[in-house]
Amino acid sequence: MGRTAVVLLSGGMDSAVAAARARDDGFGLVALTVDYGQRHRAELAAAQAVARALEVREHVVLRVDLRAVGGSSLTADVDVPRDGPSGGIPVTYVPARNTLFLALALGLAEARGAEAIVVGVNRVDYSGYPDCRPEFLEAFARVAATGTKAGVEGRAPRILAPLVDLSKAEIVREGIRRGVPFEATLSCYDPAPDGAACGACDACRLRKRGFEEAGAADPTRYGKA
Amino acid sequence: MGRTAVVLLSGGMDSAVAAARARDDGFGLVALTVDYGQRHRAELAAAQAVARALEVREHVVLRVDLRAVGGSSLTADVDVPRDGPSGGIPVTYVPARNTLFLALALGLAEARGAEAIVVGVNRVDYSGYPDCRPEFLEAFARVAATGTKAGVEGRAPRILAPLVDLSKAEIVREGIRRGVPFEATLSCYDPAPDGAACGACDACRLRKRGFEEAGAADPTRYGKA
Repeated sequence: MGRTAVVLLSGGMDSAVAAARARDDGFGLVALTVDYGQRHRAELAAAQAVARALEVREHVVLRVDLRAVGGSSLTADVDVPRDGPSGGIPVTYVPARNTLFLALALGLAEARGAEAIVVGVNRVDYSGYPDCRPEFLEAFARVAATGTKAGVEGRAPRILAPLVDLSKAEIVREGIRRGVPFEATLSCYDPAPDGAACGACDACRLRKRGFEEAGAADPTRYGKA
Repeated sequence: MGRTAVVLLSGGMDSAVAAARARDDGFGLVALTVDYGQRHRAELAAAQAVARALEVREHVVLRVDLRAVGGSSLTADVDVPRDGPSGGIPVTYVPARNTLFLALALGLAEARGAEAIVVGVNRVDYSGYPDCRPEFLEAFARVAATGTKAGVEGRAPRILAPLVDLSKAEIVREGIRRGVPFEATLSCYDPAPDGAACGACDACRLRKRGFEEAGAADPTRYGKA
């Protein structure tokens, strides 16, 4: 069956590129998408489309309704900013989101005997999320080593974050090289009901600039802001 | 409003005693119970009863269906052992369960401004779960410090495991001293449809012996094994 990796697939472009890289490195992919009650529900359909295009072995969608937790504009009734980064940690930060995603991926990796967990986190275009930094990923690797049966047996899944030091333009170029279906991905935090990206939120701004700097056409359908 | 602690409340006796201790230490309690598709559903009703008895400020129940992940007799269609501990990590181990529970507690703690997370894990009557050991809890504390906004701001919630070094008998005695409603708690992994404990699974065996060694009456209703 070969080597297996669990890949966290959000529906965005970064996780699609990270997944394509793991596939090209010879991993069989088990995709994991978390439906956490995010307002940008179109993400979930995008994740399904990306999973199909990448021919993953299995796609698990887990639902955890973080609206009962709150504390973020992505899950609560607070407006998503559309006037550019404000500095500091933005209101789109979801408390402990990547810790939760990695915890779910860790359980799935252990249940499937996977030797790696692949995440598309990135700190270069770091928009203030603490859980996209290498020191966080290293701390989580220690959790995997100490808190699982696999870890006790010396085969804790490795945490792979192949994009952590790339610029958005480099991610675009790498995705093009690997044939990532960017047209299937969605980055927008606040898409219109018809799925069009707003073009104004932080995620849209970063994506647009990445394609511009890479000298590539962005296949995203942008609606009116 | 005073200090707040998020306490992971499973419906079992250990988490009830840990919660009572945090309450007596002056914390306002936000209880968190995770409905993960466990076969011992009566746990959830027990957690509600314990939360009421302890007069928690809020009780959040989060549903994450781990049956899609599998890998454990508690979530899959595998029999729960009833003939005593077999050595090693048992089939009742749920992959990365405490990592997941702590991740959910961390997000809730951050959203509520809590300064502590309280868990009833215990390593003395350690039945082979790697995620009940101090080295795991320390690794998770580092995740909390590096992966959250609260951590970046120097106020990551502390991870408190007040029972980690107590024997089951000591936990019983501490619970009696603090007026824990043991009759509301349920330890059994495989209770009968009417809620009676089986008396034979590892959790029942540990509980019975704890009450015996403490010289106290166990209010559990045991059915026929």
